[in-house]
Amino acid sequence: MAETSREIRLASRPDGGPRPEDFELAEVPVPEPGEGEILVRNEYLSVDPYMRGRMRDVKSYVPSFEVGKVMDGGAVGQVVASNGGGFEEGSWVQGLQGWREHYVSNGDGLFPVDPDVAPVSTALGVLGMPGLTAWVGVTDIGQAKEGETMFVSGAAGAVGSTAGQIARLKGLRVVGSAGTPEKVEWLTGELGFDAAFNYRDGDLPSQLREHCPKGIDVYFDNVGGDHLSAALARMRVHGRIALCGAVSQYNQEAPPPGPDNFVSVLVNRLNIRGYIILDHYDRIGAFLAEVGPWVTSGELKYRETIVEGIENMPEAFIGLLRGDNVGKMLIRV
Amino acid sequence: MAETSREIRLASRPDGGPRPEDFELAEVPVPEPGEGEILVRNEYLSVDPYMRGRMRDVKSYVPSFEVGKVMDGGAVGQVVASNGGGFEEGSWVQGLQGWREHYVSNGDGLFPVDPDVAPVSTALGVLGMPGLTAWVGVTDIGQAKEGETMFVSGAAGAVGSTAGQIARLKGLRVVGSAGTPEKVEWLTGELGFDAAFNYRDGDLPSQLREHCPKGIDVYFDNVGGDHLSAALARMRVHGRIALCGAVSQYNQEAPPPGPDNFVSVLVNRLNIRGYIILDHYDRIGAFLAEVGPWVTSGELKYRETIVEGIENMPEAFIGLLRGDNVGKMLIRV
Repeated sequence: MAETSREIRLASRPDGGPRPEDFELAEVPVPEPGEGEILVRNEYLSVDPYMRGRMRDVKSYVPSFEVGKVMDGGAVGQVVASNGGGFEEGSWVQGLQGWREHYVSNGDGLFPVDPDVAPVSTALGVLGMPGLTAWVGVTDIGQAKEGETMFVSGAAGAVGSTAGQIARLKGLRVVGSAGTPEKVEWLTGELGFDAAFNYRDGDLPSQLREHCPKGIDVYFDNVGGDHLSAALARMRVHGRIALCGAVSQYNQEAPPPGPDNFVSVLVNRLNIRGYIILDHYDRIGAFLAEVGPWVTSGELKYRETIVEGIENMPEAFIGLLRGDNVGKMLIRV
Repeated sequence: MAETSREIRLASRPDGGPRPEDFELAEVPVPEPGEGEILVRNEYLSVDPYMRGRMRDVKSYVPSFEVGKVMDGGAVGQVVASNGGGFEEGSWVQGLQGWREHYVSNGDGLFPVDPDVAPVSTALGVLGMPGLTAWVGVTDIGQAKEGETMFVSGAAGAVGSTAGQIARLKGLRVVGSAGTPEKVEWLTGELGFDAAFNYRDGDLPSQLREHCPKGIDVYFDNVGGDHLSAALARMRVHGRIALCGAVSQYNQEAPPPGPDNFVSVLVNRLNIRGYIILDHYDRIGAFLAEVGPWVTSGELKYRETIVEGIENMPEAFIGLLRGDNVGKMLIRV
């Protein structure tokens, strides 16, 4: 076992897009588990857009990161020493002590991961928080119904790609937007989207008009900003908008202007609902029951963008906010 | 009986606020009811903000008025001649053939009005479309719960004043905004609002902070624009916004900018829902069952601004959009 463990600390709060120097790679001794504790060595660290919000010093639904302290986030690791805590040596666990190589825990807040069901990395992706986020957004928030049209922005991301496939498997027509030709090809090819387009190729309103000629019943919004404005102009009467994220705005320090076309909410009797997956963990059983078999059978596909080495986490995170990933972005420690 | 009947026609489509010359007062012969028809003489004509939208030549949820043709809207009148049609001479009916003194009908789309239950004018107000709009917005859309705080903008209007009282009677703390000191006094005095303020007196965000120190659970929006932006900044987690109207924007020809603070929808997991009362007429029985007794007992108060003479309808309508009315605005023919 290594004598030292590396971790990533917040060096400074970014102003706009995070830069590498906003992070610090530090070495600490590997901690010793006490009585009733386990030592976990992380294998996969989750790289998520919501972490950008936590770099701000403002009150939000999750606590801010503190300057000079180790950051955290989702991670899957293996128990390498156990003095209790409910986990045997060699077992796999999922928890929220990411951005570091090792940690000690008494087991609180950790969930077991069964490596025989699916690769352990899926506990951070299609069968974890992003998958649950996608499923809740399509079903509970978006109230998607067979025969309707769903548009999903940021469709090649971990949440978007899963949301689109869930809607397709439920019998909707699914249209996605992404930022590279390769992503667009992946959506309409392997993932079976009915249509997809590169939002950098033309103006959004025309692209949406072309690909959603009959309008949009459900808009699954990962992007916000101009995507939301363009979608509002195409919504059908009684449409629903699931506000899942606003990645276009995470690097903006000033509040962005609100969506144009807001009058559409009134005229078309729309329902816009923002949600945060922490409020919906009671749905995890129903989610796994429906989505688990689709993953096992291969009907629902996922992709991971895996970056090797904890030292590359800041670069991977910056890339995520730029849209470099396809599917779930992970660090392999 | 008069030999001629007066009616108001759309002379031209306004650009910005309507002017008197956008309307034309015309005289036509009193129509003769045929077999199976009735002749109705209108007594009260309803003056409503949504009529502004119908003066535009754009597709919306109700058809546009046509230039040179008589306009229409809600009205209560008395049957003055009957050859059938399901209504006796002397009975009172409510329908959508307003903006005129007389009309002929086969009875389709007309509802009986019982003058013994309440003054017949209430069929256009507290026990009619505005009352139903208020009740549906508070209960079905706003999901108002005892102990919560509701903020209602345009609170001295026909819908707003009823919505606020319904919420008060359901055990909410109710705060209203209006545009004159007299209206504010009426809200906190006779109507029993917990607080009210004149939005012209200071900046909205500060006024809302003062009067809703713990935030807003339900925002009943009749105004849109800066009221919506200010409310978004004060919404509590899991708050609901019922978008009922946007009177601040009806006279604007260009689409107004969207609300600031839109990120609040995501962070606070808000639910924003636009609605139009035509979709909710199936709730009229439940509405009358709950609200009727409150009106009879005097627990729920209403006020009418009555302008005499059909020739004054354009001026009354222009005044309505300016906020001249307290409670329901009506024309007595």
